[in-house]
Amino acid sequence: MSQQQKPGMTADEFRKAAHAAIEEIISYNENIAQYRVLPTVKPGYLAPQLPDSAPETPESWENIQPDIADKIIPGLTHWQSPNFMAYFPGCSTYPSLLGEMYSAAFSAPAFNWLCSPVCTELETVVLDWVAKGLSLPSSYYSDSPSGGGGVIQGSASEAVVTCMVAARERYLHAKCDAEGLENPSSERDARIASLRPKLVALSSDQAHSSTMKGANIAGTLHFSIVTSRENALAVTGTDLTHALEKVRAEGLEPYYITLSIGSTSTCAIDDFESLKPIFDRPENAQIWKHIDAAYAGAAMFLPEYAKSLAPFTAMVDSFNTNFHKWLLVNFDASCLFVQNRNHLTRALSISAPYYQNKHSDSGLVTDYRDWQIPLGRRFRALKIWFVMRSYGLSGIREHLTHTCKLGELFADLVRSRSDLFEIVAEPRFALTCFRVTPSALAAPTTSALTNGSASEAEVNSITRQITDRINAEGTIHIIGSSAAGQTFMRVVSANSNAQEKYVRGAFDIIVKITEEALKERGE
Amino acid sequence: MSQQQKPGMTADEFRKAAHAAIEEIISYNENIAQYRVLPTVKPGYLAPQLPDSAPETPESWENIQPDIADKIIPGLTHWQSPNFMAYFPGCSTYPSLLGEMYSAAFSAPAFNWLCSPVCTELETVVLDWVAKGLSLPSSYYSDSPSGGGGVIQGSASEAVVTCMVAARERYLHAKCDAEGLENPSSERDARIASLRPKLVALSSDQAHSSTMKGANIAGTLHFSIVTSRENALAVTGTDLTHALEKVRAEGLEPYYITLSIGSTSTCAIDDFESLKPIFDRPENAQIWKHIDAAYAGAAMFLPEYAKSLAPFTAMVDSFNTNFHKWLLVNFDASCLFVQNRNHLTRALSISAPYYQNKHSDSGLVTDYRDWQIPLGRRFRALKIWFVMRSYGLSGIREHLTHTCKLGELFADLVRSRSDLFEIVAEPRFALTCFRVTPSALAAPTTSALTNGSASEAEVNSITRQITDRINAEGTIHIIGSSAAGQTFMRVVSANSNAQEKYVRGAFDIIVKITEEALKERGE
Repeated sequence: MSQQQKPGMTADEFRKAAHAAIEEIISYNENIAQYRVLPTVKPGYLAPQLPDSAPETPESWENIQPDIADKIIPGLTHWQSPNFMAYFPGCSTYPSLLGEMYSAAFSAPAFNWLCSPVCTELETVVLDWVAKGLSLPSSYYSDSPSGGGGVIQGSASEAVVTCMVAARERYLHAKCDAEGLENPSSERDARIASLRPKLVALSSDQAHSSTMKGANIAGTLHFSIVTSRENALAVTGTDLTHALEKVRAEGLEPYYITLSIGSTSTCAIDDFESLKPIFDRPENAQIWKHIDAAYAGAAMFLPEYAKSLAPFTAMVDSFNTNFHKWLLVNFDASCLFVQNRNHLTRALSISAPYYQNKHSDSGLVTDYRDWQIPLGRRFRALKIWFVMRSYGLSGIREHLTHTCKLGELFADLVRSRSDLFEIVAEPRFALTCFRVTPSALAAPTTSALTNGSASEAEVNSITRQITDRINAEGTIHIIGSSAAGQTFMRVVSANSNAQEKYVRGAFDIIVKITEEALKERGE
Repeated sequence: MSQQQKPGMTADEFRKAAHAAIEEIISYNENIAQYRVLPTVKPGYLAPQLPDSAPETPESWENIQPDIADKIIPGLTHWQSPNFMAYFPGCSTYPSLLGEMYSAAFSAPAFNWLCSPVCTELETVVLDWVAKGLSLPSSYYSDSPSGGGGVIQGSASEAVVTCMVAARERYLHAKCDAEGLENPSSERDARIASLRPKLVALSSDQAHSSTMKGANIAGTLHFSIVTSRENALAVTGTDLTHALEKVRAEGLEPYYITLSIGSTSTCAIDDFESLKPIFDRPENAQIWKHIDAAYAGAAMFLPEYAKSLAPFTAMVDSFNTNFHKWLLVNFDASCLFVQNRNHLTRALSISAPYYQNKHSDSGLVTDYRDWQIPLGRRFRALKIWFVMRSYGLSGIREHLTHTCKLGELFADLVRSRSDLFEIVAEPRFALTCFRVTPSALAAPTTSALTNGSASEAEVNSITRQITDRINAEGTIHIIGSSAAGQTFMRVVSANSNAQEKYVRGAFDIIVKITEEALKERGE
């Protein structure tokens, strides 16, 4: 440890350190395929390698940087690796990194327009670019007469809870207004108090866990709509009708629903065509409809998906997709669009004397703090702006088309081995979900045979075992999931380093481990 | 626009771009004092300068970078400027910037331990360093028998709402347990439903607005405790007793309170000595006590403040301080410490099949997603780690001592002009709050004279006018606030570029503009 080091870093020291860091980052990226995608570290590996308190005296960068290679990189899961095929991709690209650098340099907790006007203004411009790129209806643009607009949230989970709080307040006040209760009045307060414990948020058993968590944060109940394999794990109009009847029969008040374009487990898409007439019924007008398209929404940059999916966004109050998944921007950059921002600001705006300034008071500027849970905000628009410009819409489409094709290739490979696997959900958005086919287990030695085919429990068990073995082998990383009683493997290769050879290599590993597992089982 | 550019950026292009970005960032930082601290742009300045949709074809960095100087920097409020004396400081330093660079490069939405083990493990180590650096009781360390630990949140607001949700669930279940209601049972559900609308969160009129917003997000009521100048704007034991009596008399159930070490307006510190016996009463045991020390908590790195303030943290359930304010780390890095993490995880943990892995299932690893509102998380520990090492504890103390001294200097300057100003709250933590002294307005021409001195309304009005004129002049940026009926100016100069000459310069400007305003008024 350098005892002579001055605290902090001079400009010259920073230049040298930053150049060294950039070389290390480039080397990491360019050699990403050579890292074992999942680290082999055991829980608690790091603490014994580090001092148990901060150093008393300053350390030089020459002393700090080696710890990146020695202690940090060995503990990373390499989401940029072409062998990372788990969850959904979490992209990071060079232009995005440049955005983070400037964002950190221009750091400001820009809660008000005046706190750093460009943070707000660039966000508004860039989110209009995104809305147009996704072919969202113009009611989501910042200049729409409906009061629409976009805002960058940290995650799709935050987008959900933000909308849920807005939905809850809109519902309570709309109900009181309809009942002619004055605002404010003690009668209204009492009515709201009586309604609160009856509020229920809905989502399907395929929607992301954030809706259940969000309902809990918002202090409301949650009802899970059961989907079926027959309906491709989608919520249908009939499902929604039954769910609404059921919760209302219990005296509950449905105020919010999450619908999915690309569910987490299988990329299921809810059946918006059949949902529309249910949405349109007057008794359902005050239910906030939110589309969580955290991953798959990106596909709407492609004309064919814009055509099929964008019309659904016209049916709902809010729509979310993450640039930090499929769209080449590093975490976090979750784009939330609403048709009427006033529902957000009415629910989330708090005044305080230290926020007062003539611009906010004028009502002519956007104060994004009123569109979100936190107060402060990072300058996240920069990285989206750099990525959209560095790639262009054509480059974004190229990336999406390329990775969709890799997904189709993988699905075809799975189909080519119908002796081993069966696909459990229509492959889409570069995701394939598959499991061991029951007939592959129907060997004479099987004890649990029923009509010559293995039980679902057996199929689930061996599929889970194979998933674990694939991750233990460590060349690739995938995850398993389950839906409608079926356990399966999920493969999605869609980060910026995805390539055909890795997809083919992954399939070979999966086949090899599956054959081994089946052989062992047969013995 | 380069039509030939390939989408994205090669390693060589990134190296060149990153070096150029680093030079621009260094130049920005080294010349920060020369920028007008508040930009002169008008609302809506940016959109007309940019295309209204994303480019179809990729743009080169050579085409993109000039927009930083031409369009972005002119719209920044320069929080790093030594002339920035508004709100609280929002520091950004070179080592912190290096942390953001690596964080972006190693991007992963690390919601589980397995998603990138080092993100979790370094955070645990670094937050123990912070807990020790702040002299927090060992019950806040990650290895404490009480189940304590720290977690990095995006902002103090998120810390508040996270604790509030945990508090709400703890309170509801403790009450049901005490009443002998089985878990789960329909009786318990009914009881919880009857309790929900009665829950009330408390904070003083000096606590940050995030408690009111958090109570709203959590779907509970909020009660504001009125403080007084006589008690230095602190909540006292008597205030709390009265508040609890009042809300309980209305049939409400107090479940949570925010206490302040360094309130936003004046850096008030609640009166913990007199609060302790109230906390200790059995009927108040289930009220969650949270200390919001978002800014001033940093001072506990200094032994004298550790001695006086750290004991207060032993009285409460949770404590929060932001590294992104006074502590040399760029936004966001808000450190939340709890004495028992189980209250967070019980309230916020949601299971889903796609989160399953043997490490999480073992219960031996920390999954920080269950300690927060969002799911994904950035690798924020890196930048705190780099800053703590680059500065060392001695360097952090040096920065705090230096800026505290600048605050004392400024307060002395204000005191030296008692003909113009009066201090409205004990200056502390580098913050001075002051207003025009009523006697300065007591000229014979004054129409609203009462006993030879100006009315409070007049003092407030001219103080607000002077604040606006100072910001319009534009050399420095300060904000006004108000408390207990008094409007005042706030000056805090505590970022890493703060220097005596700027503090003296700021005072000269304030005096000049105040004298001008008083002169105009007299005419």
